[in-house]
Amino acid sequence: MVQKRLWGGRFSTAPDEIAAQFTASILFDNRMVREDIRGSVAHVRMLGRQGIITAGEAAEIERGLWLIWDEVDAGTFDFSVQDEDIHTAVENRLRALIGPLQGKLHTGRSRNDQVITDTRLWTKGALLELATGVVELIDALAEVAAQHVETVMPGYTHTQRAQPVVLAHHLHAYMTMLQRDLQRLRQAYERADVSALGSAAMAGATYPLDREFVAADLGMGGISVNSMDAIADRDFVLDALYAMSLVQLHLSRLSEELIYWSSGEFRFVTISDAYSTGSSIMPQKKNADVAELTRGRSGRVFGNLMGTLAMMKGLPLTYNSDMQEDKEALFETFDTVAKALAVYPGMIRTLTVNTDRMAAAAIADFILATDAADLLAKNGIPFREAHEVIGSLVGKCTAEGKTFADLTDAEWAEVHPVFATQKPPLTAEASVALRDLPGGTAPRQVALALELASAATEDARAWIDRERAVRETVLSKP
Amino acid sequence: MVQKRLWGGRFSTAPDEIAAQFTASILFDNRMVREDIRGSVAHVRMLGRQGIITAGEAAEIERGLWLIWDEVDAGTFDFSVQDEDIHTAVENRLRALIGPLQGKLHTGRSRNDQVITDTRLWTKGALLELATGVVELIDALAEVAAQHVETVMPGYTHTQRAQPVVLAHHLHAYMTMLQRDLQRLRQAYERADVSALGSAAMAGATYPLDREFVAADLGMGGISVNSMDAIADRDFVLDALYAMSLVQLHLSRLSEELIYWSSGEFRFVTISDAYSTGSSIMPQKKNADVAELTRGRSGRVFGNLMGTLAMMKGLPLTYNSDMQEDKEALFETFDTVAKALAVYPGMIRTLTVNTDRMAAAAIADFILATDAADLLAKNGIPFREAHEVIGSLVGKCTAEGKTFADLTDAEWAEVHPVFATQKPPLTAEASVALRDLPGGTAPRQVALALELASAATEDARAWIDRERAVRETVLSKP
Amino acid sequence: MVQKRLWGGRFSTAPDEIAAQFTASILFDNRMVREDIRGSVAHVRMLGRQGIITAGEAAEIERGLWLIWDEVDAGTFDFSVQDEDIHTAVENRLRALIGPLQGKLHTGRSRNDQVITDTRLWTKGALLELATGVVELIDALAEVAAQHVETVMPGYTHTQRAQPVVLAHHLHAYMTMLQRDLQRLRQAYERADVSALGSAAMAGATYPLDREFVAADLGMGGISVNSMDAIADRDFVLDALYAMSLVQLHLSRLSEELIYWSSGEFRFVTISDAYSTGSSIMPQKKNADVAELTRGRSGRVFGNLMGTLAMMKGLPLTYNSDMQEDKEALFETFDTVAKALAVYPGMIRTLTVNTDRMAAAAIADFILATDAADLLAKNGIPFREAHEVIGSLVGKCTAEGKTFADLTDAEWAEVHPVFATQKPPLTAEASVALRDLPGGTAPRQVALALELASAATEDARAWIDRERAVRETVLSKP
Amino acid sequence: MVQKRLWGGRFSTAPDEIAAQFTASILFDNRMVREDIRGSVAHVRMLGRQGIITAGEAAEIERGLWLIWDEVDAGTFDFSVQDEDIHTAVENRLRALIGPLQGKLHTGRSRNDQVITDTRLWTKGALLELATGVVELIDALAEVAAQHVETVMPGYTHTQRAQPVVLAHHLHAYMTMLQRDLQRLRQAYERADVSALGSAAMAGATYPLDREFVAADLGMGGISVNSMDAIADRDFVLDALYAMSLVQLHLSRLSEELIYWSSGEFRFVTISDAYSTGSSIMPQKKNADVAELTRGRSGRVFGNLMGTLAMMKGLPLTYNSDMQEDKEALFETFDTVAKALAVYPGMIRTLTVNTDRMAAAAIADFILATDAADLLAKNGIPFREAHEVIGSLVGKCTAEGKTFADLTDAEWAEVHPVFATQKPPLTAEASVALRDLPGGTAPRQVALALELASAATEDARAWIDRERAVRETVLSKP
Repeated sequence: MVQKRLWGGRFSTAPDEIAAQFTASILFDNRMVREDIRGSVAHVRMLGRQGIITAGEAAEIERGLWLIWDEVDAGTFDFSVQDEDIHTAVENRLRALIGPLQGKLHTGRSRNDQVITDTRLWTKGALLELATGVVELIDALAEVAAQHVETVMPGYTHTQRAQPVVLAHHLHAYMTMLQRDLQRLRQAYERADVSALGSAAMAGATYPLDREFVAADLGMGGISVNSMDAIADRDFVLDALYAMSLVQLHLSRLSEELIYWSSGEFRFVTISDAYSTGSSIMPQKKNADVAELTRGRSGRVFGNLMGTLAMMKGLPLTYNSDMQEDKEALFETFDTVAKALAVYPGMIRTLTVNTDRMAAAAIADFILATDAADLLAKNGIPFREAHEVIGSLVGKCTAEGKTFADLTDAEWAEVHPVFATQKPPLTAEASVALRDLPGGTAPRQVALALELASAATEDARAWIDRERAVRETVLSKP
Repeated sequence: MVQKRLWGGRFSTAPDEIAAQFTASILFDNRMVREDIRGSVAHVRMLGRQGIITAGEAAEIERGLWLIWDEVDAGTFDFSVQDEDIHTAVENRLRALIGPLQGKLHTGRSRNDQVITDTRLWTKGALLELATGVVELIDALAEVAAQHVETVMPGYTHTQRAQPVVLAHHLHAYMTMLQRDLQRLRQAYERADVSALGSAAMAGATYPLDREFVAADLGMGGISVNSMDAIADRDFVLDALYAMSLVQLHLSRLSEELIYWSSGEFRFVTISDAYSTGSSIMPQKKNADVAELTRGRSGRVFGNLMGTLAMMKGLPLTYNSDMQEDKEALFETFDTVAKALAVYPGMIRTLTVNTDRMAAAAIADFILATDAADLLAKNGIPFREAHEVIGSLVGKCTAEGKTFADLTDAEWAEVHPVFATQKPPLTAEASVALRDLPGGTAPRQVALALELASAATEDARAWIDRERAVRETVLSKP
Repeated sequence: MVQKRLWGGRFSTAPDEIAAQFTASILFDNRMVREDIRGSVAHVRMLGRQGIITAGEAAEIERGLWLIWDEVDAGTFDFSVQDEDIHTAVENRLRALIGPLQGKLHTGRSRNDQVITDTRLWTKGALLELATGVVELIDALAEVAAQHVETVMPGYTHTQRAQPVVLAHHLHAYMTMLQRDLQRLRQAYERADVSALGSAAMAGATYPLDREFVAADLGMGGISVNSMDAIADRDFVLDALYAMSLVQLHLSRLSEELIYWSSGEFRFVTISDAYSTGSSIMPQKKNADVAELTRGRSGRVFGNLMGTLAMMKGLPLTYNSDMQEDKEALFETFDTVAKALAVYPGMIRTLTVNTDRMAAAAIADFILATDAADLLAKNGIPFREAHEVIGSLVGKCTAEGKTFADLTDAEWAEVHPVFATQKPPLTAEASVALRDLPGGTAPRQVALALELASAATEDARAWIDRERAVRETVLSKP
Repeated sequence: MVQKRLWGGRFSTAPDEIAAQFTASILFDNRMVREDIRGSVAHVRMLGRQGIITAGEAAEIERGLWLIWDEVDAGTFDFSVQDEDIHTAVENRLRALIGPLQGKLHTGRSRNDQVITDTRLWTKGALLELATGVVELIDALAEVAAQHVETVMPGYTHTQRAQPVVLAHHLHAYMTMLQRDLQRLRQAYERADVSALGSAAMAGATYPLDREFVAADLGMGGISVNSMDAIADRDFVLDALYAMSLVQLHLSRLSEELIYWSSGEFRFVTISDAYSTGSSIMPQKKNADVAELTRGRSGRVFGNLMGTLAMMKGLPLTYNSDMQEDKEALFETFDTVAKALAVYPGMIRTLTVNTDRMAAAAIADFILATDAADLLAKNGIPFREAHEVIGSLVGKCTAEGKTFADLTDAEWAEVHPVFATQKPPLTAEASVALRDLPGGTAPRQVALALELASAATEDARAWIDRERAVRETVLSKP
């Protein structure tokens, strides 16, 4: 049987079946069922407190809402495409449970301010979960980094070996990106943390609602300041999509590195079998499948951001059904990023680092040429000139098939008089030790940087714990 | 119980559970189950014909495959996330049905050439279905246009009334866009129509396969010419995504017009209640929900194209798991566009056109000013000068609150001596009749254009019917 | 003559001419010439202070840099494509001015940390300029809003008239969006406000640089914490592109409204001739060209964000030349958004508001139906039931061609007994007055909201002034 | 002095200076000056032939137009931002040259149909130039491929060595992609090859124009069939942007490979110094800058496509100024792709291939495991079982640090009885020779494929030459 819609009064023709399916959002917005129930609980409590309905009515409606909550817990709450959307599904069920009194729940409220509040509540939860995942990945990177503060490897520019660095420094670069991600996720969270209830259809409600009470009851940080903007705005969805895009972007870069590092050419790391897949035809293959998929899915994540921007482009105020499409992008992006954050820490922790291969590469290809030029510069030769001297030396060695280590003292002296008495560093370890400035790759600096990162992570964790506690209280049956 | 994977031989650690879910594609690629079975049937028939396996073995494997086909028909074929992908699911089921002989099916084939062939087969079907939907929408537009070859309305530039046109001309503009869409869909179809089987993992197979036989058995137009490209290529997916994007783009423009045309300000059309929704709070509201969603979903469709381009960017040859992500974009875009094409024809056919409102607007706002300037130009006044004369007249009338129809003969003569003896057209009907060139809005020309469009549609229908017949033969149990 | 490149030492073949043009960035990065000179000044001051070069050398190099600054002022500084990039151009010129001593400037610095610092300095300036433009637009909206706190107009959902609002409320919705933009611009500014100098090529410098001194001398808020991330990171560019995208998104919505509001169908506003264009053929046309272009350019702005995300996808650490492409997207987006912000305030301030048209529309189409339903609900009828009662009434009136105002007392009483003694509001003014909650459209609330907005704008202005003062000091010749 | 605009008649206020700059397109559309002049020549010839103006007037206007053409040749034609757009600039100059007679040129034409015809003419030229560039790159690849039909290297899946291939096969994969690009460029060309003149503002012209004559005079393949669609359509721009996106996508993949192949880890190729850049700080560096920029610029190219789709989304018919933004995306994408196609052939031809490194890698990492499994399968062992046998062998060898070549006859026999009498191929050369199917990597097949490719290229060249000849005739002064 077709369920009752919330708006049938003036309509003479029944909805076309294809059109009804076309416009229904319940197949994805059912995901916000708890946020929807909880939002209604807050609203009805307030209606009772304000005397807009009686205290008894409010209590009875709230009781009915918690019954539905229990059905959701039990997996017995049923939504079908006939219900159009989750808000209608909950209301229809409530009417079945408590009768016509249900009709009073929607006093001073529209689906417009209801859906936006549900979505904001859901988004807050999603961002908090992602922040947790980011912290866990930072922790995993920090653990591996702690073991490799002195492990030398080549640092790259242009995918060419540039200068030696330590592996911990390389991993700490990703920790630094993820710290910025935490900041962005938190800023997105704060912009989502606003209750729209009381905006009604878009002009504001005509009842003496207590908007602040509702916000507080839902653990929201504040109320919207303009009813039309409250209904028309999807900035908070875009902020979340953008913050998630950068998380996935950073993971795509780490993924690219893991893919190449585990190739036959690099062999810097071995990914655990538990995080690899094989080939149906080539028995020897072991593929960095998780990393590849993470890299590939960044396309989808960016596409969702772009699609949502395009969707919002040029929409007049206030609500347009176009905006219903925000949720699929939001949910799908969240799922994608959350899954990547769920799988990455384990893969990082079980990585085997082939320190010998890294060390060999960290000394190859005249990678210490800059240090030789620097030594000349420190002896008063303008750097530009020093660069040319060493550039020519590299050219000559390449032509003769030699490395710097092969040069005799006499050959060094010929290159430049400075080298008659001073030698540039000829090991990767000596080279990294020279970079002893804040942010540099000298092990001493890297150890300091890891300590600072640890403190920053603690701050993030404290914020997460605090918000999570509020959320858990709000989203649990009293 | 975890199902057997196709590649476990050299692996010592069981897959991490989260990683296994992360990499599994079966939750979406199960959609290609029939293409997968049918591709295997073609392959095994060929193996038998070429004597690579015995005829008896081939027959037995084929029999098993059709049993699975029947299970799919009956809804009893079961896939779970343990199966990793649909290819594995079918193979595991086949082994259960016919025993170890199943192992011979994969001779001379890899999942790489298998999945690409499945996807190409599926894409062909999808494009054919969309072409059918586009033809249906053209038909619906043509039907309404046929009734409105003489219905005048304002044509717009810059959302300002510009010159009168007839409604049929406006609708025919959309038919013209959709005709181009048919061309793009067909070109995408032709590029998809290539069998990759025989490319194996990416270097080509080592068995004496008959690649042309397999292609013919699958109703494919040809075979791929380079095994590495065959595996690495997703151009055909992008071609399909692009062709679908333009369909949705055109629908988004039509949607925008329907939304405004049905607003309180325009009132040009009334959308049937069957294709409208209401408001939970505002009893008087009737919303063009289908049109809004269609417009909004174009963001998602464009985002999927963009995401897939970004996903493919910079991928080295040949297969990378990133490319597994092509299918979700492809399926979702297809579903979105197909649904819009399913709902639109009915909405167009049930549209009420408010011809009075259109006619009134078609004469308002000095919309015939160009015709007045043209009359001067036809009398030898350089058009630039004529434009200025009439521009000033418009300014003067506006200031005095008059329309052209209010002007006396004397006033016309004052504007320019030409108007003493000749009058510009003062009705929308007279104005449109003047535009009697191919492509113009004179009813005579529009009627001709509709006839030409009808012939073009017949051509498209013939192609669709031909390809559909082939497809139905290929994709049915003998 | 081909200018000297900074890296020719080891190269045996001269650059291919096409390749040299292909890789040169000077045609766009010359825009950062002042930031580049100033960054060098800070670096050389520090080299002198730290005794890495002598105080005399530092002073002489600084003198040469300010000479180039003067040449830029005078428009006599010449860059050509031979110079590859602006950094090389400045160094080549410096060498011409002060001789080989120039070579010491690059001590402890790489183009990698130099270009990123230049870009960060430039980005800060750009974001500050945009924030100024946003504030100016808020001011213009506030001025017009102040005149229309009681001007009623229809509020829309789904582009259908929904409920009356006041124009000031509608404009305040945009002010609220722009306030969020200010927040995002500021957060992007703060993430850009980091000095990368000292990171050298990517591993950190080997000289005893004082990184904090350089940052302070450049008016930067802090230093980067990881040299690899400092070089590899473009988050701050993406943050800026994203913040600018939302500004343009909001403008695209306002533009859509202005386009339709100035159409023949709405006629709510008249855009000043100074901000309109005409037609070369249709003398009567007046087009909202500025609004259309602003709406259209949002595509370009979003495309630049998307393209930059795609560009960064999957790049391994640290610098890759791909990232050179960040600047064209950044510059072009800035120009686009800055131009829109430059033209919009004038267009808003010169808008003619057709209050009569707005008022008439604000009462049409049963727009007060919600209020009638609310009145029933306030008398204890469940809202759902009230909604149906009024929905039926709307249907009946529509069929009979009546408005609510046409109904007799007896007819009202027939609708529902409540209406025998109480009447719903029947004017737009009465309706808006009922929405007297924070964020609602009652004039009293709107006036309060405008006051709060004004305070928020003052806060933004104070921040802008503070940062601007710092910037002006840093970027002026002492 | 402000130049005269084409539409000033009814305007009372002069354009705001900022608004005038905001709306002007001349800074980019001046690029179409020749197309604009030539389109006017065709139009005026037709006006004369049809007697709409006198033959003498037509000749005089044509003479004036060719004078401007000469000025463009001489570099003396001046456009300034005051001219608004190139069409106005040409008309203003024409008036200066021939006086008020210029005013008759615009008879029966609007800027709307003029600009679209200019853009279509320009786009045809651009696509032809790109097709030429693609053919040149195919030629360069074919030349290198011809030298490496027997050069073995690893083929990759998942960036892991999979099976040996020959280098010519790998290069031929790119030739195959580029062949598809030629097809797409040609299809885009054919959809651009339509004259819109006669559509006037959007309703069609009121003069007895000969639309077919104009099309033929401009070398266009046909005329538009609906005047509203003709003005409102930008499909041909999108088609071009899409076709160019796929060219750049393919180049981005080739670029990724060249970047890694020239890294210290792969060392498969050495890029000529002429196509490389160095580092300002690291004297030993040589960077694949051209390849990196090509890869990076794909982001920009995709962004332009995406931005143009977003720009077109939801635009009502017919012309809206938003659409003016199509040209910057089109021009910039063309420039980007054309430059990449200009630089790539030289880089490919001067590539040094390190065949020893390739050969060594082509035999490493159990890359021949599939062949061993295939041998078992050919002896009747189900492939799945064979896969497991060899998978275990790989695992055992890895654990013992052995390669297949290290195994004794006895050890082979132990692996499987089949190996007692038959040995799998143990060289890359033997392995590739086995893949002797159409599309496979056996040198014999690759040589055949190169021949077929050569024939396809000849076909493309013939088409290009034909169209180019037409174009040169049209776009030259008689």
